[in-house]
Amino acid sequence: MLQRYFPILTWARSYDRGVLTSDLMAAVIVTIMLIPQSLAYAMLAGLPPVVGLYASILPLFAYAVFGTSRTLAVGPVAVVSLMTASAVGAIATPGTAEYWEAAVTLAALSGVMLAVLGLLRLGFLANLLSHPVISGFISASGILIATSQLKHILGVKAGGETWPEMLSGLAGAIGSTNLATLAIGVPATLFLFWVRKGLKPALQRFGMPARAADMTAKAGPVAAVAVTILAVIGFGLEARGVSTVGAIPQGLPPFTLPSTEFALIQALWVPALLISVIGFVESVSVAQTLAAKRRQRIAPDQELIGLGASNIASALSGGYPVTGGFARSVVNFDAGAQTPAAGAFTAVGIALASLFLTPLLFHLPNATLAATIIVAVLSLVDFKTPRLLWAYSKADFAAHAATIVITLLAGVELGVIAGVAVGLLLYLWRASRPHAAIVGRVPGTEHFRNVERHKVLTLPHLLSIRIDESLTYLNARWLEEYVLEQVADRPPLRHVVLMCSAVNAIDASGLESLEAINHRLADGGVKLHLSEVKGPVMDRLGRAHFLDDLSGRVFLSQDSAFAELALDTGEEPGPGDPLDARGMI
Amino acid sequence: MLQRYFPILTWARSYDRGVLTSDLMAAVIVTIMLIPQSLAYAMLAGLPPVVGLYASILPLFAYAVFGTSRTLAVGPVAVVSLMTASAVGAIATPGTAEYWEAAVTLAALSGVMLAVLGLLRLGFLANLLSHPVISGFISASGILIATSQLKHILGVKAGGETWPEMLSGLAGAIGSTNLATLAIGVPATLFLFWVRKGLKPALQRFGMPARAADMTAKAGPVAAVAVTILAVIGFGLEARGVSTVGAIPQGLPPFTLPSTEFALIQALWVPALLISVIGFVESVSVAQTLAAKRRQRIAPDQELIGLGASNIASALSGGYPVTGGFARSVVNFDAGAQTPAAGAFTAVGIALASLFLTPLLFHLPNATLAATIIVAVLSLVDFKTPRLLWAYSKADFAAHAATIVITLLAGVELGVIAGVAVGLLLYLWRASRPHAAIVGRVPGTEHFRNVERHKVLTLPHLLSIRIDESLTYLNARWLEEYVLEQVADRPPLRHVVLMCSAVNAIDASGLESLEAINHRLADGGVKLHLSEVKGPVMDRLGRAHFLDDLSGRVFLSQDSAFAELALDTGEEPGPGDPLDARGMI
Repeated sequence: MLQRYFPILTWARSYDRGVLTSDLMAAVIVTIMLIPQSLAYAMLAGLPPVVGLYASILPLFAYAVFGTSRTLAVGPVAVVSLMTASAVGAIATPGTAEYWEAAVTLAALSGVMLAVLGLLRLGFLANLLSHPVISGFISASGILIATSQLKHILGVKAGGETWPEMLSGLAGAIGSTNLATLAIGVPATLFLFWVRKGLKPALQRFGMPARAADMTAKAGPVAAVAVTILAVIGFGLEARGVSTVGAIPQGLPPFTLPSTEFALIQALWVPALLISVIGFVESVSVAQTLAAKRRQRIAPDQELIGLGASNIASALSGGYPVTGGFARSVVNFDAGAQTPAAGAFTAVGIALASLFLTPLLFHLPNATLAATIIVAVLSLVDFKTPRLLWAYSKADFAAHAATIVITLLAGVELGVIAGVAVGLLLYLWRASRPHAAIVGRVPGTEHFRNVERHKVLTLPHLLSIRIDESLTYLNARWLEEYVLEQVADRPPLRHVVLMCSAVNAIDASGLESLEAINHRLADGGVKLHLSEVKGPVMDRLGRAHFLDDLSGRVFLSQDSAFAELALDTGEEPGPGDPLDARGMI
Repeated sequence: MLQRYFPILTWARSYDRGVLTSDLMAAVIVTIMLIPQSLAYAMLAGLPPVVGLYASILPLFAYAVFGTSRTLAVGPVAVVSLMTASAVGAIATPGTAEYWEAAVTLAALSGVMLAVLGLLRLGFLANLLSHPVISGFISASGILIATSQLKHILGVKAGGETWPEMLSGLAGAIGSTNLATLAIGVPATLFLFWVRKGLKPALQRFGMPARAADMTAKAGPVAAVAVTILAVIGFGLEARGVSTVGAIPQGLPPFTLPSTEFALIQALWVPALLISVIGFVESVSVAQTLAAKRRQRIAPDQELIGLGASNIASALSGGYPVTGGFARSVVNFDAGAQTPAAGAFTAVGIALASLFLTPLLFHLPNATLAATIIVAVLSLVDFKTPRLLWAYSKADFAAHAATIVITLLAGVELGVIAGVAVGLLLYLWRASRPHAAIVGRVPGTEHFRNVERHKVLTLPHLLSIRIDESLTYLNARWLEEYVLEQVADRPPLRHVVLMCSAVNAIDASGLESLEAINHRLADGGVKLHLSEVKGPVMDRLGRAHFLDDLSGRVFLSQDSAFAELALDTGEEPGPGDPLDARGMI
């Protein structure tokens, strides 16, 4: 029981020197990768860069205690940073103390929500975000984030929440581009793109082993940071308009408390919920992928608690919402991390950086951070998925496209909500119109097939309907309409058989519809029968009065229903009788 | 096409003298029943009683043109009147012109929403109201309505939106009960109960035919109205504190226009939507029941348009939201109505009443109207359903109970919303955890059954999983977790077969989960196979890359998968090999 809520107990006991070495190695590499990224994502969130470091310390310790993934690396990530900027930007001005306090409060709210969802085992709610919706959301967020950073590359001031606003803001400001900034930003961006794509093969050509080349390439951003800092100092670029990070307070994260102001919480709870769900979905997919590679398991409901604890930790140490990041987790995994202790060691590394390295970052140009962000997020934009979805399923494509368009035009919050709503509507629409078929007997067999697809025998006084779905409240009304419509067209009808071989469950609404159909058919002189009802469904029907009231019978097989009811035409059989179906059977 | 949107065209052509006679007869009986009811429901809605008459004229003509049910009788109904009182009472004071205007606006909004839902063919959204939710809502509304009318029986002033408020209001006011009012109200209530239960058998005992006795009993409320008016006049009860209807403006309904004030519309749109959906669901169930008795059909999406037109007509003629009523439709049907023209004739009857009868109603005690309402709505309270639901399905019982409790404690709007939310949550929860089973071969057959329920053969290197549900985004994450969890426990595993005989569809999220499972299993050296994939599902899979990437194969039958994969143990077969399964096959 304790182990369930404190997964650290499962791995801490068998911790030894070998595991320690692996974890330390991974922690060093992840720390180097995380420092520029944390600064950059905090800037994206509209916060002082140092807040990114704060958000990368205590949350990692919390996850090490409560998380179930051995290799997930939590911290600030691009999409959640954008969502933070959008939520907090709506109620405070970036750069103010109120803005920071709201971000801290957002992390606290999100942390509490995640933990409560986990304790109530409500992780299934994340299912409402389908793959097409998430992928559309991530792509659109990538475009929004990259566009939002262009102003730092150009060295201009431009705002905007939505894509059209951002583009028009940039178009208006492009005339005042700062050339010195551009001279930093464009080469930095190109260099980082090359590091991503071309550095590893180049290092391998020089004889470096593949894995070492991969790890070295991850340190590329650090090189860009160092070189551009030197360039700023060497050429005195700050005097020529290049804006830099400036003074970063040195020291460990401060102790902070979220605001308890009701109006603020009221304004932030919806974005906090969306951030929680998006963060959880992103994190759990990464964790699952990595766990499967080593045949380990994660517990999604405990992951909610782990991420909740991380966010509460972030709120208590001056940070903002965090979650498990894709790129850093993969690096952590590839670098050989064995346990969440690697995360704790990374936290120590970041803490050391915030104690000793921050003075070195005074001259770091914002353009370099923007380049880091642009290169990181453009890989999130996925051009393949829309094409695949269009080919595979128009409904899924619709949910994907709606999410992209609304995220770009109306912002991240409405984008997620619209995606969930469109997906759910399409699902409910389909669930309310399940597949059903009039069936007849395949001559010479005991099989019954769709009359529209096969040459089968049917009788005018006997209608057999196969329902290919459980009977639930979503399709109960359809069931009544469908059956009664089929019956209204067939005056000589005396028997209706519902073939229930694909009915896995019947809820109370489905039962009431069956009762209504039974009574309405009886009013018209038609008997209702069931066939091939599954055992558990039959058990449940036995607890209601339906079987007592049923005008017809329950047949074990459709074949026996057909054979017996074929004889009851309601007419005297005679030679040459057109209803003389008995010869057929 | 025209006939689809104007169902009047389908029946008006063949209209003849015989149908006319039937329709006129039915109209007379329904008119007599409707006059006291309309006055009473308007009072329940917090409106002047005459508004009930207005809402029973033009809407009936509109439904006759646009409605598809031959016998549905539209007009003010109890539950919608209560919802109107709740919605309009939140923004205006009963008795004021603003209150009436808001009610007219509510009817207009509801009319437009219904018509738009109908034109967009979105009637399926009404499916979100399951039978247990509707039944709970109607029961709780009946209790709320009856309680709200007790003050008129006691002759006291008492308010309250929720049940506890109403009860405490009554408890505080009971000391100032007006005995003269009580002397009218209690006998009227008892008389109406007796009319409902005992009059018909009594009349039959006196030799009246059953149907005539039934129709005569429907006129009982008119007798109560007449007798209590005479009592008020004869004993001068108004001077003794009995409140009466008072002056009712004589004449046809006024032409009114809804407000276009944005703040009002913003305050009313949610209640308007709830009223629309509740009204539609109630109306369409009645219409369907009656249509089935004569093997007629109704078109639910056109019904939305018909009810939409009725509400717009109501808004244009000083009325408030209307829908198809259960009791009056049954009376209309039993009295022999053949076409919606009966509704139009009823409208003429009500119009005549509002032209000539209203002066007679000056002395009508409110207590009599309250008695009419109480007797009508107590039949809505359903004590049987909770018991049946408890026995049949705990989940449905939970939705039912939640709807009742929240409607009583927090009012009608939150009650409906909570019912829909609880129902949907339970549905999604179940949909996210479908049934699946590890299956094995029943010895000596080609059948594969659940290993937990049957004695079947399995192999340590081969795992067969049957999924009893379509693979959609709601269960995609579950699918990954379930399969990977099963695999994590079985180190000697080499093959996993997903038996897809119950999989009717695979959406893009389901496909992506299959791809993820395929890759993750491949990473662990396990091959994924499918068996018994249905034709349409296979066609769709052919449009994606999945089948190319699949590490294993697609088998036509589970049996052939088992037979072939049993041989591939990955070990050299030897005598006495524990995996020597070939002998079994």
